[in-house]
Amino acid sequence: MATHKVKLLPEEKSVEVPTGTLITEAATSAGLEITQPCGGQGRCGRCAIKIEEGVVRKRSTIRLNADDLDSGWALACQSLIEGDAVISIPEQERIERRLVTEQTARAIELPFDYIPAEIQSIRTHQLSLTSPTLDDSQDDLARLQGALQELGYHPVEFSLPLLQRIGSVLRESEWKPHVVLDAPSGSGPARLIEIGASPFHPHGLALDIGTTTVTAYLVDLISGKVKGSAAEYNGQIARGEDVISRIIYAGKGNGLSELGTLVRETIQTVLEKLQRRTGIPPDEIFKVTVAGNTTMIHLFLRLPPETIRLTPYIPAVNHPPRFLACDLDLAFHPLASVDCLPGVASYVGADISAGVLASGLSESDALTLFIDVGTNGEIVLGNRDWMLTCACSAGPAFEGAGVVDGMRATQGAIEEVWVHSDTFEPTYRVIGGGKPRGICGSGLISLLSELFVTGVIDRAGSVKIDLDTPRVRQGDHGPEYVVAWSDETDTGGDVVLTKVDVDNLMRAKAAIYAGFSVLANSVGVDLADVQQVLVGGAFGKYINIENAINIGLLPDLPWDCFHFLGNTAALGTYMGLLSNELRVQIREIANRMTYMELSADNSFYDAFTAALFLPHTDIARFPSVAKIWEDESGK
Amino acid sequence: MATHKVKLLPEEKSVEVPTGTLITEAATSAGLEITQPCGGQGRCGRCAIKIEEGVVRKRSTIRLNADDLDSGWALACQSLIEGDAVISIPEQERIERRLVTEQTARAIELPFDYIPAEIQSIRTHQLSLTSPTLDDSQDDLARLQGALQELGYHPVEFSLPLLQRIGSVLRESEWKPHVVLDAPSGSGPARLIEIGASPFHPHGLALDIGTTTVTAYLVDLISGKVKGSAAEYNGQIARGEDVISRIIYAGKGNGLSELGTLVRETIQTVLEKLQRRTGIPPDEIFKVTVAGNTTMIHLFLRLPPETIRLTPYIPAVNHPPRFLACDLDLAFHPLASVDCLPGVASYVGADISAGVLASGLSESDALTLFIDVGTNGEIVLGNRDWMLTCACSAGPAFEGAGVVDGMRATQGAIEEVWVHSDTFEPTYRVIGGGKPRGICGSGLISLLSELFVTGVIDRAGSVKIDLDTPRVRQGDHGPEYVVAWSDETDTGGDVVLTKVDVDNLMRAKAAIYAGFSVLANSVGVDLADVQQVLVGGAFGKYINIENAINIGLLPDLPWDCFHFLGNTAALGTYMGLLSNELRVQIREIANRMTYMELSADNSFYDAFTAALFLPHTDIARFPSVAKIWEDESGK
Repeated sequence: MATHKVKLLPEEKSVEVPTGTLITEAATSAGLEITQPCGGQGRCGRCAIKIEEGVVRKRSTIRLNADDLDSGWALACQSLIEGDAVISIPEQERIERRLVTEQTARAIELPFDYIPAEIQSIRTHQLSLTSPTLDDSQDDLARLQGALQELGYHPVEFSLPLLQRIGSVLRESEWKPHVVLDAPSGSGPARLIEIGASPFHPHGLALDIGTTTVTAYLVDLISGKVKGSAAEYNGQIARGEDVISRIIYAGKGNGLSELGTLVRETIQTVLEKLQRRTGIPPDEIFKVTVAGNTTMIHLFLRLPPETIRLTPYIPAVNHPPRFLACDLDLAFHPLASVDCLPGVASYVGADISAGVLASGLSESDALTLFIDVGTNGEIVLGNRDWMLTCACSAGPAFEGAGVVDGMRATQGAIEEVWVHSDTFEPTYRVIGGGKPRGICGSGLISLLSELFVTGVIDRAGSVKIDLDTPRVRQGDHGPEYVVAWSDETDTGGDVVLTKVDVDNLMRAKAAIYAGFSVLANSVGVDLADVQQVLVGGAFGKYINIENAINIGLLPDLPWDCFHFLGNTAALGTYMGLLSNELRVQIREIANRMTYMELSADNSFYDAFTAALFLPHTDIARFPSVAKIWEDESGK
Repeated sequence: MATHKVKLLPEEKSVEVPTGTLITEAATSAGLEITQPCGGQGRCGRCAIKIEEGVVRKRSTIRLNADDLDSGWALACQSLIEGDAVISIPEQERIERRLVTEQTARAIELPFDYIPAEIQSIRTHQLSLTSPTLDDSQDDLARLQGALQELGYHPVEFSLPLLQRIGSVLRESEWKPHVVLDAPSGSGPARLIEIGASPFHPHGLALDIGTTTVTAYLVDLISGKVKGSAAEYNGQIARGEDVISRIIYAGKGNGLSELGTLVRETIQTVLEKLQRRTGIPPDEIFKVTVAGNTTMIHLFLRLPPETIRLTPYIPAVNHPPRFLACDLDLAFHPLASVDCLPGVASYVGADISAGVLASGLSESDALTLFIDVGTNGEIVLGNRDWMLTCACSAGPAFEGAGVVDGMRATQGAIEEVWVHSDTFEPTYRVIGGGKPRGICGSGLISLLSELFVTGVIDRAGSVKIDLDTPRVRQGDHGPEYVVAWSDETDTGGDVVLTKVDVDNLMRAKAAIYAGFSVLANSVGVDLADVQQVLVGGAFGKYINIENAINIGLLPDLPWDCFHFLGNTAALGTYMGLLSNELRVQIREIANRMTYMELSADNSFYDAFTAALFLPHTDIARFPSVAKIWEDESGK
């Protein structure tokens, strides 16, 4: 097969590839990465590159306009090399490993009665064995087993690497060895993790593998105290921003293995941060509890996830067995227990089981709505007696994806906007205080709410193009509102919200609200009867309730019904790490939750369509918004 | 540090080594192996090499005489390179992987009622699962667990590599997968070994790791039939012929790991033979049962064995847990169960526990003496109600080691000798029928017996140097008897039995007989009351009973009391492989046997000394021998 020389600018890297190679693949083989938020499906347009010279066949040119195409722009994931070529990769499209603001990894507080000796599965002891004699020639292992049995540990599992060491350790310790055991009450035999002549101080890790962010808490397993926390963007982002993109990527060639490696690299980076902050090396971590949505857990365990996205949406495993760190190729103590918490279904994962525990819903008498707004939107409705759950395919619009000037909540993101109701001029607040680069989720909710209440957009989400302000104009992608002029921004371009963006945001919020409606309807409950709304997820805590109600994202309840709980998945994971009893509760929660598959529910489509208005087709559901809107309209 | 050039003949291989390197190490780094039967302790003299040129410092020259030293001979394991050198490695001293005669691996016969479906732990099934729908969205694993639970398997352990495959296998098999389970009744949960869309035919391996020979039987786990057998010299022989030498070798540098690797290479060779003979590849072996003496099991598991040889003689493990093939780096199915059978003590191992089962002793009403004469000599005395066991440090004299012209029972070994009582001229039988190269164990027993009954040696083992025959002469190592003149032999030298050899053989037989005596005395039993003597071990079956009684190796009982059982260790291992119930019986046998540590027993030394005569100091114990001897003496 013919090969062609591809030169990549601005790095001036050259690579020789056969006919038909994708530009993304050519870049990879040259050691460069081109971001593919939609997983290389040619959907998002984020992998746009410029063909400076040469022969390239374009399979799809979605999101590129005629001018773009004339200037040589193409989608790297959809363009095949068919001759020598010179290609520019725009700087802003290269993947940067941006630091997660440490806000997402704030200290966890103890929300429960923690009784270390009683409920902790990792136990340390110093044993006292009789030394062998010619008249007492019991073998080393039997002698050790006898001492452990006296403490109530029987049977105990011993792995080969420890067996290979017990002889020397018993003698070095003069028959008084220190041991570390994993003794999960009621779930199988105890297991020896470590044995030595010196005492061990056991640590554990609560690990929340989010689609976007991996968060970890390093915990002292004797005091129960969090010694340090760290977070990092999930390295899989470069292979797809949402779970569906990653599932598709996992199905290609070596994709599954690659995604497994990427999240391990992220975990490794998190562990290095934790070691710098606490001085505790990863191999002193004896127990790890892992939460994440079902896809993240599948990718972490390298379980093929494709059936998650194909009807009837079946995961390989909801309740993974316990593994050893060495079996998972992780840098903890090789015999550390790695316990992936149980999920409920393909789109309601362990993060929700753990989050429900942390939220208190499962122990509450009040009718409670729990929402985890992350890259996915999962909802639980219920109380101590019953729980119903579903996932809304809200998409990542609130994380800035699918929005022209959308971005994550980092430095330079507009996080809140106010629009003047007469001049339609905006003011805004930027994370970090500098010039804006784009708009993050809370900023988008705020902006949409402001544009709606000031009448810049109507209830159907149409931009009123005839308003007497330069802020509203016809752009390349239809009508748009300019939030920041190019001379105010860090990018040198205008920051805008287009009609397409508004539609995307409305679909996202409609999906979430439709989820609420379907759950409530299915048990004959009125959303107005909900007594508390618990909002989890890293994103949740920045939402302005009023704005979210205005656009119909959250139900119209008194503001004091709402509680922002932060990263409930991480908190629940921490609770499960520390306490056997709470670990069992998480399993019971997962088993008790009744899952509704919305794609199998005809009423969901109706509810979704009805929610595709601001705030909703049925304005009576939003009396507080009706009032504002009538006031504004009546001006 | 200065380095020197060492040239090794006849290969003409050269290697550069630092000052102080042992010649054995220099040879290893040149890719050559010099045999070290005593483990490099300078005891056996078998690593003798010739210094052709150069500077070498000799630490020990044991077993080399003045002429040898003058001619440049030295011990490779005791000589340090201190300058450039040219060294000849004699051809006969290089290690050859000689084929074990297939006599030692004859087909095993079923000695017990074998009921495959009832007692076999490896089970195969085809399951029938309901396929998932939107209304029945149970995950794959839970669905599989449900079907297994209906068959009575609960809980079932699943390893990660299988979890990674279940999704595709369930769908490929249209929800009717074939499974292989290890379900050892009463010892923990069942474990999934394999799952696929096609049926599996399970095979197992009974593996007997002897100090000298590794023997394996490949077994069809459905029919219980032996499909093939193979044997191979244990590759560790090059690092020491007896267990003590290997323990010492294991304690040096990387020795333990090296010995573990050597036995794995031997097992690999055995598996290749089995595959050639049966067409069954190793990865279709789902279960392995392993026997061996305690040191062999330690080296196989790479458990440091040094405490076995140091008082109070404590092994790391008598009852090893069950391992997976992948954890042990073995080429079976990676999830095959590898079950090392339980031993009793440092010098009574799993080979004896399994051998006792195979011998039937533990179910017998008759007072029974069981002897396994291999590289070590283990003895069990008892019946169904009680069992007493000990090990005699007999040494490997009966395997030809420590005897000038001793050799193993292979091609060219004199296996039986008859000495004319008037002329003292011998006749002999050679294995394979060609010219003799040396004398094997049965030949040595035969020769010693003949020399004793013909009066060539007296009851104290002294050679009567004044006999009127050229067969008796003064040799380099004292008085000796010439079995074959140089012109009859394959080596071009005389084959002789020296006074030193006689002493070694008498010590070996005395140790074994002293073991009998101590066991019998300790329970107040007379050896004459023993009703049957069961002889196991590959070597045992070639022993001529009359000869063995004549020299006092076996007690003087009617010949029909003796039963040669062949490789009882392998037979018991096969029984344990096939039957859960018998596997449990082996464990019970190991637990029931009372071990006597002879080195801790003062009466052993007395009994040993008393047995250092032919046949014994107390001739009254050997009435049949007394009669022969009196007849001969009275001539």
